[in-house]
Parts: sequence; structure tokens; C-alpha cells
Amino acid sequence: MQDFSCIYNKVNSYVDSLNYPSQPEGLYEPIRYVLSLGGKRIRPVLMLMAYELFRDNSDQILPNAVAMEVYHNFTLLHDDLMDRADMRRGHETVHKRWNDNTAILSGDAMLIMAYKLFTSNLHLLPSSFDVLKTFHEATLGVCDGQQYDIDFETRGDVTADQYLEMIRLKTSLLLDCSLKIGAQLAGASVQDSDLLYDFGEKMGLAFQLQDDLLDVYGDPAVFGKNIGGDILCNKKTFMLITALNLAQGSQKAELLYWLSISQSSLTDSSTLAADKIRAVTAIFDSLGIRSICQQKIEDFFAQALASLERVGVGDSRKVHLRNFANRLLLRDK
Amino acid sequence: MQDFSCIYNKVNSYVDSLNYPSQPEGLYEPIRYVLSLGGKRIRPVLMLMAYELFRDNSDQILPNAVAMEVYHNFTLLHDDLMDRADMRRGHETVHKRWNDNTAILSGDAMLIMAYKLFTSNLHLLPSSFDVLKTFHEATLGVCDGQQYDIDFETRGDVTADQYLEMIRLKTSLLLDCSLKIGAQLAGASVQDSDLLYDFGEKMGLAFQLQDDLLDVYGDPAVFGKNIGGDILCNKKTFMLITALNLAQGSQKAELLYWLSISQSSLTDSSTLAADKIRAVTAIFDSLGIRSICQQKIEDFFAQALASLERVGVGDSRKVHLRNFANRLLLRDK
Repeated sequence: MQDFSCIYNKVNSYVDSLNYPSQPEGLYEPIRYVLSLGGKRIRPVLMLMAYELFRDNSDQILPNAVAMEVYHNFTLLHDDLMDRADMRRGHETVHKRWNDNTAILSGDAMLIMAYKLFTSNLHLLPSSFDVLKTFHEATLGVCDGQQYDIDFETRGDVTADQYLEMIRLKTSLLLDCSLKIGAQLAGASVQDSDLLYDFGEKMGLAFQLQDDLLDVYGDPAVFGKNIGGDILCNKKTFMLITALNLAQGSQKAELLYWLSISQSSLTDSSTLAADKIRAVTAIFDSLGIRSICQQKIEDFFAQALASLERVGVGDSRKVHLRNFANRLLLRDK
Repeated sequence: MQDFSCIYNKVNSYVDSLNYPSQPEGLYEPIRYVLSLGGKRIRPVLMLMAYELFRDNSDQILPNAVAMEVYHNFTLLHDDLMDRADMRRGHETVHKRWNDNTAILSGDAMLIMAYKLFTSNLHLLPSSFDVLKTFHEATLGVCDGQQYDIDFETRGDVTADQYLEMIRLKTSLLLDCSLKIGAQLAGASVQDSDLLYDFGEKMGLAFQLQDDLLDVYGDPAVFGKNIGGDILCNKKTFMLITALNLAQGSQKAELLYWLSISQSSLTDSSTLAADKIRAVTAIFDSLGIRSICQQKIEDFFAQALASLERVGVGDSRKVHLRNFANRLLLRDK
């Protein structure tokens, strides 16, 4: 059974050793660039760890694990284009460094490469068509999540449950399907595979809610992004939706006032932008949104761990996966 | 053994019966729209006809055949976005009717749906991992072809062989892989599968060269596009490359003069544009480009038919495929 560092290093080595056709360079160079920018490699690590719950030596499923990483990076490439985001992991995004058409076409090729890599060894492995179904569920579901995310930008009536369903699709699905595929490829029972899926789903929800929380309450030096970005663009997060539900009278009016300010006014005036972040955060504080959100994160995390506990292998085999989940949620205990 | 009309109707019925998730509507409605606009369904028809060379009742491979059509329509969707083309098959393109982000994301989902459909029945069929390899070759190769097509726009030194390789990737590959997959799924020998691949490759090259020829010499009422589009945008077709190789002295200078006129001048002046089409066509005429191109088409078509002849089944089984090739090249004989 391999620990996190060992698995993480193997994933990175495999990513580094991927073969790209030398021509046409304009198609493959951006793909090589994107995959060289690092990242936490959460999805392949989870797949390999899930496999190692049941069987040693997960090396043979490295292609499947890295395929999930290639797919994830493809979604970032196209999402950054759609969001007109210029930077990712401290480097220029593909559409910024090259152009929009390169981002479209290299992204398409990257999605195909993910499928090619994922299926490259399936003829040697058990449950090959079952894992392919799980892979389709992940790849198509993430597109659904991205579409809901776009739709929610222009909708005023998004409920907390709809928001949670959107982040389940957009964030959790690649985690839970990675875990399930790892289990399926190791020949685990349907029950254990489903428990790992549930573990990943709840962990993903907790992870995204924590990311939202840090966007408001995080330490900018640690968080790595500017604080208040979600507040500025009126992102309908679980926190904002809950605040809109709880606020009453003049407080609700004040919250709606800040939501009604045009994006261009905020872009033109950094003072107004700072005022908005401060005012909305104060309303969150007064409504107890931080602790409501923290409680939700705790609940999801507890549900995740409960599912992991129920997986039918000895507790000693679960130690790396449990540690990883704790580290992902910044709780090194 | 089913004839063209029967197969064509089955393909269309299958396309019409495809199930799309009802939500998110913004993701799936553009896909339904694109697939409802018709088209010649060449690729799925070829796959089914190749299958029926060896076995009756190709119905069981309809999902694989239609997956190729879904993939082909995905490439049109993203290519039209990259080319800023507003119309396709007499209707607005997706980025025009909706917006760029919809074209990106619905295209991505369409590519995934093609893979999902293609693999949906593979566990029931022989050679499942072989055909998956052929499918990857087709999907990734078309991206290569599109990249070369983009690269060639800004290169002055494209050779005739490089142009033929580009159209092999961009046009032929889906035809030849459709034929090969049909044969593979029917359990044909490697030799017969490869012969059908070669038949498709040469037919695709002949088809694209003929399309280029009609762009210059076609009857606008029959061709369905404006004549001279390739000349106006200096597309490095086989004809232009051959003309540049053959032209000498003042004729070469005149040809280079017309190529040097800026696109904006041509857009601003329809008289200048018409003059350019007339002048370049006159140079083609004087150099015998039309007959050189026609000879090339004949050669490829003859090579295609020779490969079909060598396929190891009785001649009577080949009649529909031979007729289809003749019809594709507008030679109803």
C-alpha cells in the first residue's frame, strides 16, 4: 500500500512522460503547457488510493487515473476561455497566451486524449465497460454543472439545493467517479464502490463550500486569490442564498441594494467595490452565515467519513485516504 | 442486404430518436438543433454498408454509426465557431443563434455524447477495443487536420502533398474509419478492413478535390455555394498550389499580384473581388489546372474502386457501396 507522496510522485511522473505527437505543434504544445503547470492532482490520487484499498500495486491503472487529470485540465482550459480568465496557477491561460481558436481546438483534442488514455488499457482490466459508464457520467455531468453555473448567473431565484446540485456536478463528480472507478478496477463490490462514490461526493461538497467560505473569510496570503470575488460578482453561493433567505426588513433591503449595483460601477470604482465587500460581509456576520456554512461543511465531512468507515476493508488500509481527506479540508488531524 | 434508401432512413430515424436529458436545456437544445438540420449522413451510411458487405442486419451497429455522425456534427459546430461562419445547411450556426460559450460547451457535450453512444453497445460486439482504436484515430486525426488547415492560412510554402495530407485528415479520415469500423464490427479480416479504409481514403480525397474544383468551376445553382470563395481567401488548394508551381514569368507575377491584395480591399469592393475571381480562373484555364485536377480526381476514384474490388466478398454484395461512391462523386453510372 503506497502513501500519498509515493502516489503523487507516480502521477506526476506519468503526466510528464505522456507522449504527444510532434505535429501539428500548434495543437499539442498548448496541451503539454497546460499539463506542465502542476496542480494538486487530486483526482488521479483519489483513484489510485481507492484502488489500493482493495489491491496493492495500482501502477497498472495509472493511465485511467491520469486520464481523469487530463479531462479535468481540459475543463479548466475551456472554462477559462468561457469566463475570459487570463491567469491559472500563476500562468497565462491558453486563450491568452495563444488565442481563442487554439483554446477551442487544443481543448477538443485534450478531451479526446483523455478518452484515448482512459480506454488504452481497459481490455486488460476487469469491469472495463462498467468503468467506462462511470467515466461518461463524470465527463458529461461536469458539462451539466458548467451549464447550470452559467444559467445561475442570470437567475435571481436559485435555491440552496439547486446551488448544491450545481457544485455536486461541477466539483464533486470528478472526485466521486475517480474513487468509484478505482474501486471498480480493483474488483470491489458494488456496495463498496458506491460507498466510495458517496465519500467523494460529500467530500467534494464540503471542499467547495469551504472554498466559498474562504472567498469571504480567508487570509489572502494563504488563500491565493483576492478576497470577496464572489461577493463582487453576486455569485449565488450557498452563503448568499442563505443570507437572502434569512435577511429581513432594512437588512434585506441593504443586501438587495448592494446586489443591484452594476458590475461596471464596481469595476470603475475600487472604493465602491471595497465598500460592497465590507457591507455584504457585515450582513453575513450579523446573520451568522459563517457558522451556518461551517456547520454545513462539518456535516458533509462527517457524512463523507461515515461512508469511508463503512467500506468493507480493514481500518489500517483506509489511513491514507482519511489523511488525504483531512488535508484537502485543511484539517491536519 | 439493405439498399441506400433503407439504410439512410434507418440512420435518420435513429438520429431523431436520440434521447437527450431534459435539463439543463441550454446545453442539450443546441445539440438537438444541430442534429435536426439534416445532412447527407455519409459516414453512418458508409459504416452500415461496410458491415453489410459481410453480414446482414446492420441494425445492431446503428449506435456506432450514428456516433460517427454526432462526432462529425460536433466538428462542424466548433469549426463554424472558429471560422465565424454564420450559416450551415441554410440555418444559423449555434454561436450565431445562441452565443460563443454555448457553442463551446454544447460542442464539448456533443463530443462526449459521441463517445458515450459509440461505446454503448461495444460489450455485445466483437473487436470492441479494435474499433475503439479506429474511432480514436478518426476523432484525433480530424483535430490534426483542422490545425493544419488553420496553420496553412498563414503559410506561403504549402506543398501539394501537404495539402493532400491535410484534406486526408480533415475529410477522408471519418469516411475511411467509418468503413473500417463497419468491417471490424462485422468480423471482417484485417486485410478486408484495411482495403475498405483505403477505399474510403481515396474516395474522400477525390470528393474534397471535386469540392475544390466546383468552388471554381461549378454551377452556382447546383453547387449551393458562391463560386470563387476559395480564390477570394487565397485558400492553398491543390489547384492554387499547382498553378503557383506551373506559372512562370509575367503570369506568375500576375497570380502573385492577385494573392497580395488585402482581404479588406476585396470585402470593400465587389468589383475588385469579381475581377480577382475572373483573373485567377483565367490563369487556371491557361495552365490547364482544371484538367490536372480532374485527372487527380479520376486517379483517386480509380484507386478507391480498385480497393473495393479487392475486398473478399462476392461482387453482388458490393453494388450498393459502389453506387454510393458514384453518387457521392456526382457520377450516376
